[in-house]
Amino acid sequence: MGKDTAALAALSGKLLMAVAEKRPLVQSITNFVSMDIAANALLAIGASPAMVHAPEETPEFARLIDALVINIGTLSKQAADSMEIAAQAAQINRKPWLIDPVGAGGLTFRNETMLRLLKYNPAIIRGNASEIIGVTRILGLTDKASAPRGVDSTSSANEVEDCAMALARHLKCTAVATGDIDIISDGDRIARIANGTPMMTRVTALGCSLSSVTGAFLAVADNAFEAAVAALAIYGVSGEMALEQAAGPASFRTAFLDTLYSIRASDITTRLRTI
Amino acid sequence: MGKDTAALAALSGKLLMAVAEKRPLVQSITNFVSMDIAANALLAIGASPAMVHAPEETPEFARLIDALVINIGTLSKQAADSMEIAAQAAQINRKPWLIDPVGAGGLTFRNETMLRLLKYNPAIIRGNASEIIGVTRILGLTDKASAPRGVDSTSSANEVEDCAMALARHLKCTAVATGDIDIISDGDRIARIANGTPMMTRVTALGCSLSSVTGAFLAVADNAFEAAVAALAIYGVSGEMALEQAAGPASFRTAFLDTLYSIRASDITTRLRTI
Amino acid sequence: MGKDTAALAALSGKLLMAVAEKRPLVQSITNFVSMDIAANALLAIGASPAMVHAPEETPEFARLIDALVINIGTLSKQAADSMEIAAQAAQINRKPWLIDPVGAGGLTFRNETMLRLLKYNPAIIRGNASEIIGVTRILGLTDKASAPRGVDSTSSANEVEDCAMALARHLKCTAVATGDIDIISDGDRIARIANGTPMMTRVTALGCSLSSVTGAFLAVADNAFEAAVAALAIYGVSGEMALEQAAGPASFRTAFLDTLYSIRASDITTRLRTI
Repeated sequence: MGKDTAALAALSGKLLMAVAEKRPLVQSITNFVSMDIAANALLAIGASPAMVHAPEETPEFARLIDALVINIGTLSKQAADSMEIAAQAAQINRKPWLIDPVGAGGLTFRNETMLRLLKYNPAIIRGNASEIIGVTRILGLTDKASAPRGVDSTSSANEVEDCAMALARHLKCTAVATGDIDIISDGDRIARIANGTPMMTRVTALGCSLSSVTGAFLAVADNAFEAAVAALAIYGVSGEMALEQAAGPASFRTAFLDTLYSIRASDITTRLRTI
Repeated sequence: MGKDTAALAALSGKLLMAVAEKRPLVQSITNFVSMDIAANALLAIGASPAMVHAPEETPEFARLIDALVINIGTLSKQAADSMEIAAQAAQINRKPWLIDPVGAGGLTFRNETMLRLLKYNPAIIRGNASEIIGVTRILGLTDKASAPRGVDSTSSANEVEDCAMALARHLKCTAVATGDIDIISDGDRIARIANGTPMMTRVTALGCSLSSVTGAFLAVADNAFEAAVAALAIYGVSGEMALEQAAGPASFRTAFLDTLYSIRASDITTRLRTI
Repeated sequence: MGKDTAALAALSGKLLMAVAEKRPLVQSITNFVSMDIAANALLAIGASPAMVHAPEETPEFARLIDALVINIGTLSKQAADSMEIAAQAAQINRKPWLIDPVGAGGLTFRNETMLRLLKYNPAIIRGNASEIIGVTRILGLTDKASAPRGVDSTSSANEVEDCAMALARHLKCTAVATGDIDIISDGDRIARIANGTPMMTRVTALGCSLSSVTGAFLAVADNAFEAAVAALAIYGVSGEMALEQAAGPASFRTAFLDTLYSIRASDITTRLRTI
């Protein structure tokens, strides 16, 4: 393990313990598919999930939360309105928030919704490669044609690096593109994490749950870049540890959540791979 | 095991068998996070779940059901309206119903919704300690300051006993406050169940599923107090049995639902602890 | 194994491999209870799930999908409108679609919604026995009184065969009624599959997930009858294989999804039973 990798592993372990100690309250306005796994992933790492979403209460709730996560997976007109109110409330109350642009790039309504939401200064945008390319294109920052088919990514991690960097600079945020190699950029620094397993793509909403967990790290980290690195490192290493106990995607899901609960800083130190 | 404990265990075992035999139809208007686990918990004990919620059909459906459970977890304006129509329909059709006041006390909109719903005479109100204190405060029955942080409870079981008793008397219902010690009061009697494990708080919506299962017992018990005691006893004992097979919260969830399916009256007799 | 059974098993194995190879994009507008298991079942067999449902984007999305599945489980006015727009878009774009008539027959609003949706020529209608009888009755094709209690079926498989046949002829589609014996009819042919286990009725939304998986087979099969046979064969055999590893309904659910992921054509050949 090189010096940089060791530093990122140490940082991830430190933030893992910080989440367990602070137990941040993470509001997740997420899609209907991911509610269960996102809440369980947050509980597994010791955070406190809340799926409050109504415009009648998000402005009041924004004062109580430690971070907000918005995921546009099962979007609707009503949900888009709620999301905008919540994002604005997070900004007003100076609470860090993350957006997960599920399916962005492929459908007009979600592209327009993304433009509405990005005005409120998310700290992190996290998607798969196709989605990160898609958002970059919506903002006119690239001509690269991404053709997301549903919500699964078809682009390679290498293609998306330029887009993540451009997006981070333009939005003054941290951009995360997950894939075989996970890419994290704040427009200046870039980190590449090589852990994980293809089995993670066979469990629905595992990426959505990663977004919620990244929200928990936002609440304890010094900055969004470090929060994203820690979340990605812990997910990638947990995925590899869970695979050793799995017979298929459902037993993998169980082992993965159990591992999020029991993983230790030393596991990350031993297993993290960056390139 | 003392005489009272033995009597409560025998009652719980009897009602467990009654649910498996009658297979009550339990309508659950519950939050999006808990849909899966609530339905699976009902099926595990042999009840029949139905998540019908639309105002277009709840009045008609109220004639077919054996009990109704309302959970305000992921509240919205539209959901609140649906819940009021369903609660009213249950009252008109003399079907027992239970309310789970998720997050009550902490947010204005859900406090107002609670006041709307409590008019329709729920048979049981079940929440964690903070929520039960919260509802008692909304009704002006206590000055105790509960500060729920999200949906997880921070109050001790001892603090909440007075509130549960006051709430039960005021609403003429049975109040249940779950925690390290579960408290059940109908305003006259009080029961305290000491089973369970902290791992139960690491599985999202396990408390919500307890509310749905309590609805199934409402459909077969002589009264709400006995229904609540049976549900709490079975949940607490199943939690302890499941913990013996769990490596973390996800394998615990699996073992817990399996145990709900296979638990026998003799398990309750052997393991129930009251104080 | 007779000649017909061998032919159906071979067909099912061939389509199983075709799904894994083509990875069809299956839009599922399904109930809130089934979102998680439906998406995970699709991923397990190698298909790509998308739970897009908003009327703002379904017409555009219909051009990208390979099949559509609509499930009316947790119906609402808003959902019914979305479903009609999606069904119409599928018809216009000549994408095959399936309807799962959860609870049909028992409640006026869902009966009316069924009539609205059936106008758009579904390729398959799949329900349990009570639901298939219920839909047949709504359409005035039978006097048989089905009294569904919630969403669980109380009719025997034998009773429903005439209804499935009548429904298939009237709607010019394939009708599937699941039960102890699963019945598939296109109005001309009839197939009866005798695999499966009662444990499948103890896992919520397993039938809904079967509907979504059948949608994936619609995208690769020559016709709807063959798609339905393959889905039923694979579900029934997987259920029996999973039961061998299960201690209760939750470990069964895990084993079932793992089996969907790992099942091979030879498993179907060995185990399929038709009558």
